[in-house]
Amino acid sequence: MSNPQPVAGLLLFPGLTQLDLTGPYEVIARLPGWRTEIVAKTIAPVKTDRGLVITPSVSFADAPPFDLLVVPGGPGTDDAILDAETVEFVRRQGEAAQHVFGICTGSLLLGAAGLLRGRRAGGHWAARDLLTQFGAEVSDARMTKDGKIYTAGGVTSGIDMALRVVADLAGEDVAMGIQLQIEYDPEPPFNAGTPFVAPAAVVERARTAGAARRAIRAAAVETAASRLRS
Amino acid sequence: MSNPQPVAGLLLFPGLTQLDLTGPYEVIARLPGWRTEIVAKTIAPVKTDRGLVITPSVSFADAPPFDLLVVPGGPGTDDAILDAETVEFVRRQGEAAQHVFGICTGSLLLGAAGLLRGRRAGGHWAARDLLTQFGAEVSDARMTKDGKIYTAGGVTSGIDMALRVVADLAGEDVAMGIQLQIEYDPEPPFNAGTPFVAPAAVVERARTAGAARRAIRAAAVETAASRLRS
Repeated sequence: MSNPQPVAGLLLFPGLTQLDLTGPYEVIARLPGWRTEIVAKTIAPVKTDRGLVITPSVSFADAPPFDLLVVPGGPGTDDAILDAETVEFVRRQGEAAQHVFGICTGSLLLGAAGLLRGRRAGGHWAARDLLTQFGAEVSDARMTKDGKIYTAGGVTSGIDMALRVVADLAGEDVAMGIQLQIEYDPEPPFNAGTPFVAPAAVVERARTAGAARRAIRAAAVETAASRLRS
Repeated sequence: MSNPQPVAGLLLFPGLTQLDLTGPYEVIARLPGWRTEIVAKTIAPVKTDRGLVITPSVSFADAPPFDLLVVPGGPGTDDAILDAETVEFVRRQGEAAQHVFGICTGSLLLGAAGLLRGRRAGGHWAARDLLTQFGAEVSDARMTKDGKIYTAGGVTSGIDMALRVVADLAGEDVAMGIQLQIEYDPEPPFNAGTPFVAPAAVVERARTAGAARRAIRAAAVETAASRLRS
């Protein structure tokens, strides 16, 4: 067939932050004419960081080449970037895909796979500075596009960026239609969504609560980066 | 024990729109000291409207009394409001819960369970007018609170409202801390999130595409409403 159905593949791994995946999924799964797959090492159900269990639709071994690869993040990223099979899968699919989309600390996994060398990329506010270790130039923007690589900031920014990805793939009218279906006219009740705008005490508390995770992550990134260079 | 751990129960049923559930889940599962359960008829995995498969953590029969009941919507609502076991479960849990939170067409299920009589409530823009059949007064707001009943508009509005619910349950500082963790400082790339702001052609196309679903829904609501009155 000269024009087979394009496929979006969304990566699922243990300990991911489920909204990194499910936010973009809700947008991308509405792309007219596309097929959406949830891909994991095996098709066994996967437990996400807060406990929600999601079942993959296809395994690494059986996955078709993806036209769009979507890589979410979360605490599980720190294991994923050290897992050779996962890193190799992301590298292989990401190099061949026409579009690659990382959300939150998913950009660290793109980095570990060597996909961000010389690229501008963003990620969760508490982790994106680590992207330099993978040869990336860090962006503090909520949405960053460099060539075929789309990266979003933490968690919910994946919804914004998914609409932009859909606009690029299928046009702005389609993206606006999806935005209307999911009634995305946000009204956050507070102004605390980034460290630049949140009250200082809220930011300080978040940094303190995240310190242990940050230390684990920094060590994992160092190891993953040295593997990439070797 | 005089002060057992409070429990949030999020309803899962076939054909729901997964982001109605997973958006609020990401916020509520971070409530300090709370336990979060995904409740369904049985603990078998459930397929949501676009295909994503989620596994419940507890069945109707084994569910504890919930302090917070969360009811998402989606196309599957139209079967759920006609399913006596589901409606009765929502009625029983909803009457006893201290807080009830409906998202999208989940408010139709709250209505079918008799929880909205004389209450002001909202829901997805394409369906909320139907709430009058359950004795509710319709709100076009993205977030509506009437007594213990919180209702949100379509899909993504559940994220905004979940932050407000958390603020009421645990304080604004906790809600802002969660907003920061999930980096919720939205930047929709288009202004098309409600029929009031989207381009007319986009709204018209959405209404045409949704006409068949609307007819099914209206008939289901009529039947459910007549059962409620009898």
